[in-house]
Amino acid sequence: MSAIVTIASGASWQEVVADRQKHRDATLAEVEPTLPSLPPVSLNTLPIAKAVLTADEIKITESVVEKLVVQLAEGQLSATTVIKAFLRRAALAQKLTNCVTELLSSRALERAAYLDDYLKSNGKPIGPLHGIPISIKEHIGMKTLDLNGGYISFVGITSTEDAHILQILWKVGAVFYVRTTQPQSLMHLETSSNICGVTTNPFNTTLTPGGSSGGEGALVGFRGSCLGIGTDIGGSIRSPAANCGVYGMKPTSGRLPMEGLIAAEAGAEHIVPTIGPLSTSLEGCKLFIKTIIDAKPWFKEPSLLPFPWKEEDFFEGRKLKVAVLWDDGVVKPHPPVTRALKQVVGKLKLDENVEVVEWKPYKHDLAWQIIANLYFADGGIAATKAIDSSGEPWRPLSHHIIKNPHVEAHTVLSLHQMIVKRNTYRTEYASHWNSTATSTGSNGEPEGMVDVILCPAGPGVAPKLDTAKWWGYTSQWNVLDYPALIFPVDKVDVEKDRIDEKYEPRNDWDKENWGFWEKYGAEGYKETPISLQIVGRRYEDEKVVQAFSIIQKKIGLPFAGYL
Amino acid sequence: MSAIVTIASGASWQEVVADRQKHRDATLAEVEPTLPSLPPVSLNTLPIAKAVLTADEIKITESVVEKLVVQLAEGQLSATTVIKAFLRRAALAQKLTNCVTELLSSRALERAAYLDDYLKSNGKPIGPLHGIPISIKEHIGMKTLDLNGGYISFVGITSTEDAHILQILWKVGAVFYVRTTQPQSLMHLETSSNICGVTTNPFNTTLTPGGSSGGEGALVGFRGSCLGIGTDIGGSIRSPAANCGVYGMKPTSGRLPMEGLIAAEAGAEHIVPTIGPLSTSLEGCKLFIKTIIDAKPWFKEPSLLPFPWKEEDFFEGRKLKVAVLWDDGVVKPHPPVTRALKQVVGKLKLDENVEVVEWKPYKHDLAWQIIANLYFADGGIAATKAIDSSGEPWRPLSHHIIKNPHVEAHTVLSLHQMIVKRNTYRTEYASHWNSTATSTGSNGEPEGMVDVILCPAGPGVAPKLDTAKWWGYTSQWNVLDYPALIFPVDKVDVEKDRIDEKYEPRNDWDKENWGFWEKYGAEGYKETPISLQIVGRRYEDEKVVQAFSIIQKKIGLPFAGYL
Repeated sequence: MSAIVTIASGASWQEVVADRQKHRDATLAEVEPTLPSLPPVSLNTLPIAKAVLTADEIKITESVVEKLVVQLAEGQLSATTVIKAFLRRAALAQKLTNCVTELLSSRALERAAYLDDYLKSNGKPIGPLHGIPISIKEHIGMKTLDLNGGYISFVGITSTEDAHILQILWKVGAVFYVRTTQPQSLMHLETSSNICGVTTNPFNTTLTPGGSSGGEGALVGFRGSCLGIGTDIGGSIRSPAANCGVYGMKPTSGRLPMEGLIAAEAGAEHIVPTIGPLSTSLEGCKLFIKTIIDAKPWFKEPSLLPFPWKEEDFFEGRKLKVAVLWDDGVVKPHPPVTRALKQVVGKLKLDENVEVVEWKPYKHDLAWQIIANLYFADGGIAATKAIDSSGEPWRPLSHHIIKNPHVEAHTVLSLHQMIVKRNTYRTEYASHWNSTATSTGSNGEPEGMVDVILCPAGPGVAPKLDTAKWWGYTSQWNVLDYPALIFPVDKVDVEKDRIDEKYEPRNDWDKENWGFWEKYGAEGYKETPISLQIVGRRYEDEKVVQAFSIIQKKIGLPFAGYL
Repeated sequence: MSAIVTIASGASWQEVVADRQKHRDATLAEVEPTLPSLPPVSLNTLPIAKAVLTADEIKITESVVEKLVVQLAEGQLSATTVIKAFLRRAALAQKLTNCVTELLSSRALERAAYLDDYLKSNGKPIGPLHGIPISIKEHIGMKTLDLNGGYISFVGITSTEDAHILQILWKVGAVFYVRTTQPQSLMHLETSSNICGVTTNPFNTTLTPGGSSGGEGALVGFRGSCLGIGTDIGGSIRSPAANCGVYGMKPTSGRLPMEGLIAAEAGAEHIVPTIGPLSTSLEGCKLFIKTIIDAKPWFKEPSLLPFPWKEEDFFEGRKLKVAVLWDDGVVKPHPPVTRALKQVVGKLKLDENVEVVEWKPYKHDLAWQIIANLYFADGGIAATKAIDSSGEPWRPLSHHIIKNPHVEAHTVLSLHQMIVKRNTYRTEYASHWNSTATSTGSNGEPEGMVDVILCPAGPGVAPKLDTAKWWGYTSQWNVLDYPALIFPVDKVDVEKDRIDEKYEPRNDWDKENWGFWEKYGAEGYKETPISLQIVGRRYEDEKVVQAFSIIQKKIGLPFAGYL
């Protein structure tokens, strides 16, 4: 591999980009068998996979993690066979949606061969993820590979070792085979950068896959990956998962390892980012999180909490109490979202072991003001410098967030005051949740409260490119540091979702969002997945997963297939 | 009660002080029976308690929490009898060591009467702390009472409700009866303010009781309290506990409720303060912490972690592995401390169920530079303003810490860089601890590591007034956010500790500290308690308590009595 072209070495930003893309394309060209020439990209790219890949490749790549784990452990499938199928489908995903920064064919094949040998020699898998292919968002560092976090000025930073989370996944048998795209600044709910261009949604290429883990969203949605790693500080795992019809989980902070990632805002701990899975199954997400926690990552990374993954039955002998948030009171969701929510709630209400109540949003507008301010506590200096120092142009959504009206150039004192404001809001929200209690415990603690909130995953389905403006449906749970899970429910139906209701928007955010619906209508978003979100209280990650698992079994989600 | 005289109302700082002291003295005068006139204060004030109090009062106040809890629950002692005894002994403590900001006689007696009625009517105690008197450091807010945190400019701030921790303690039966002194700024390891003057050590009034919870230290040491609440961001629970020969625990952050406290640095979360108990027994500390955690305070205060108090046996079927830190490599401890440590280690080495190894300190000087910087991330602006805005003079130790050479006026960006430095240090220290592992678990996690570190509680016993300069032996565990427990071991012995060794100091800190020993010698600290510290990894609070409990049973601590 020749030396990476960088700004520091005197190159222009365009030369850096050309080099990165050339590198990416070279890694794609290594895939065997070579992909055939493709039909023109249609709105929905999934049928192209069916046309191009072999039946075996399709079967493998459309399998879920929990099935592959067993087949790999029992030797029914070799790690080599599995990774070859995923490498080809990932390469295809790149050609159709532009979601890959580089394929890691030789590393992955070598690793798979090692695992196959291991299984043969030892008669047992190396660990709980033996042979499972895992795709990785680019800003999660990998040994000897470039690490740019979406900034051209960062190109040339090379990791000296794998990020902590990858070290753990490696030990338990994962195969790393592809790195995926992210937006400039890592702070869009889309995926558009000067390094890679624009990543599109595999189900409707006029739409965004979401972001910032949008390469993961597109890749997993396309089934070029069954398990990928994203990061989330305002919706960056959840928006891509939701937009691309897959499962995605943002755990509470402090549960999964964050060491070895790059971002302009290193050291900012006012809003803590989290790392988490995107997967084609709930079990994929759960196995990912549990496996990492089982490795006790807190010994190496002391900011993590020494909680084991709880396996207790949270709902034994009692009803699951679900609160429904229809609308955050700031931006009204588009009709498909509300329809999906109605479907789910309607079915849940028929179940005698579920109690459904309404969730009244508590000052979600204030929550946005706080988080939009705290994202860039330095006034956006670090992010601005990271863009400007290469001369690369600003992408529209970088401007949207880094120069949002709530950003201020804090002094340390004013920052402390904003943190107090954040803490007060968190306490008030907790009190709001406590107010759903039906009794009081012996030491005065609230009991019988709502277990989880069921709510939209965004103000609509996957947005048109450069229109993902309102973060509130996801960032709300980052302000509060609550765990949240995305799950697929249905898809946009031009007939059912053709709603011509007149709606008088409440504010500029609402007006802009509703304007997109009025402009594009159901037709503009057709066939796109509709997803929803389940949210729990801080550190109740296990409860969220278990609550959704119960719901899924009860009502048979998703209601539509996407393949 | 007449209106509080404040700076805002136009008073001078001296007038504010006069009013506060007048108020304090008026609350003292309410104590019945009135205290007799006292003999002149000698070096050790404890004999005066024996001379002045009744046999019953002595017996009650010298009982430990776990004994009183049973007697109160069974009605062998009434809450009224108990609180009357503690009110009198606390009043006496104030006269001898100046450790009280106000007595709360009428509140406490009313509360005790209520509890006595409750027990009579219900035939059972109201909760696990039924009738237990609890003393409270002043900056922990109490409904309708003044809250100044050691600053004259803050006098007049009144709490609208009890601090969260007090609300819980109240529900389980505590009786609040006294508020205790703290230093100007809350940031001394002594207790000297313009509001209250200087608090002294009950065992040797030429020495400090430590600080910043020094009122608690003096009061609990004097047995004017069996259970008190302090706070700790650099040693503020542990230095008073150690200096006054009682138990004190600084838990990991996020375990006990912090809402409702006052400090100039609100919103600073770079080094997180903790709240915790000082008690005349280990069981007192444990019962305090466990009772609060049992009330699930995380529902109300979402910054707390939803960990129950773990009751598992951490050392079942294996040796307790204790590492001994003799010297932090920066400041050499005075001879009594090293002698006490030798005594304990010598006995532990004889026990076949304990493995004793050496702990090599890892860059404790760097740890101090980081924490001394992060205490005042705003460059000390908030603390300086809180002092200067009343015109009150700076106490020497306020200057020592707020204007320490590591303080800088951070920008948000430079603060983030310092936080990265702190995180790196924490990771390195964790790695240092991991390096004591003897094997590796199935997922790569370290096993067989050191359980706890046994170390000095300070660079000497209780210091001469205004000489508590080196915080490293306690602040080290705040940088790392490790739980730490103080326990009494022995007392200074003029013969045994008369050491004339020549010592060549390593640095200015060391020179200053050793200079105090050379100047005052064993004679200067005679009869003073010697305490040590047990430290665990982050969130291993239960393990620390259990490890010490085992050690205490094995070797019979403390070796000396103080009463």
